[in-house]
Amino acid sequence: MGKLITFEGGDGCGKSTQLRLTAAWLRSIGKEVVETFEPGDSALGSQIRKLLLAGEHAPVPECELLLFLADRAQHVREKILPALKRGSWILCDRFSDSTMAYQLAARHLDCKSNDLAPMLKFAECGVSPDMTLWFDLPVEIAAQRMLLRQQAGEKSNRLDDEAISFHQRVAAAFAHQAESDKQRVVRIDAAVAIESVQQQLMAVIKERFAL
Amino acid sequence: MGKLITFEGGDGCGKSTQLRLTAAWLRSIGKEVVETFEPGDSALGSQIRKLLLAGEHAPVPECELLLFLADRAQHVREKILPALKRGSWILCDRFSDSTMAYQLAARHLDCKSNDLAPMLKFAECGVSPDMTLWFDLPVEIAAQRMLLRQQAGEKSNRLDDEAISFHQRVAAAFAHQAESDKQRVVRIDAAVAIESVQQQLMAVIKERFAL
Repeated sequence: MGKLITFEGGDGCGKSTQLRLTAAWLRSIGKEVVETFEPGDSALGSQIRKLLLAGEHAPVPECELLLFLADRAQHVREKILPALKRGSWILCDRFSDSTMAYQLAARHLDCKSNDLAPMLKFAECGVSPDMTLWFDLPVEIAAQRMLLRQQAGEKSNRLDDEAISFHQRVAAAFAHQAESDKQRVVRIDAAVAIESVQQQLMAVIKERFAL
Repeated sequence: MGKLITFEGGDGCGKSTQLRLTAAWLRSIGKEVVETFEPGDSALGSQIRKLLLAGEHAPVPECELLLFLADRAQHVREKILPALKRGSWILCDRFSDSTMAYQLAARHLDCKSNDLAPMLKFAECGVSPDMTLWFDLPVEIAAQRMLLRQQAGEKSNRLDDEAISFHQRVAAAFAHQAESDKQRVVRIDAAVAIESVQQQLMAVIKERFAL
């Protein structure tokens, strides 16, 4: 079986860049690597992603959560599980921790997230990350980075455009998850330079998987 | 508060026709009536419906279930809850019992449906039917009716086209649900003529709601 490493954190934390660097490094040491993301990295999922992020008809919070989970189930069965069976290293940009942070905690969904744990498990179709890298970055720095991206012409989506208090709840939720599952989640200091972030990643991955 | 009556049963059982007749009757006695259906009776829901039924990229069973639930949450919050608050009678063609029968029982989803009960509740956003009419029709008769419809030029969808054994599991699931929630679910004999089915409906609705 392969390995599933998930990259988690608020918008602007740098995880997507780090994912590409990590993929290149793992390939350079001879690993078969699959780079993927949620939501939207399956044929059906890309259509679900449009419903989620385009904002033409904004989903209510419960619908939003269920659409993210629908995308995940399709992604896991179509892409992640087959790649795991082939023995690949799968690097996935966002997974269940993002759902927990964005769709549950930050939306104040009217239910204890514990009640919904079986639902998140159901959408994972039996898969769980071997390791989760949490890119910890103060919300203020993330907001500045997002602003720079937008000034550089990058289009924001419906979730990027939420208020700062929303992103603060997201950050608090990630911190809480890291605290409550220390075995799986590794905190990465994302406030430093790209190279330093990558050094941290390589160190923790080498250690965890004895590379 | 208004009333929510759900119309449930296998394809070809006649529930949609009966729903229209029931709406006309309730209006004739002065009730404010909303006729609705699942999946797809909201702006976002109609797009989810396309993903579910067009069959361009067939969802895996878990994704299919979650898309039906996503559609329900949107439908409940956008349409059913506001109508209930206005005091309307809402007649809904398919609701959670269909999900239980089609997406869980008939797909043999790899989990006890009890584990998923909280998920179905979550998608209902606090609403539950005041009464559910289950249109009981032997699968063989339903299949003949569906064939006639197709010969008459009506297009079938991805779920209509499932094997007869699938529809038998759907029927068994509806029967089981009727048995386990006798207070809510009323069995209607759907094998008789349209007028006789409507007579049964009027009788049970009059009795239940003291009309």
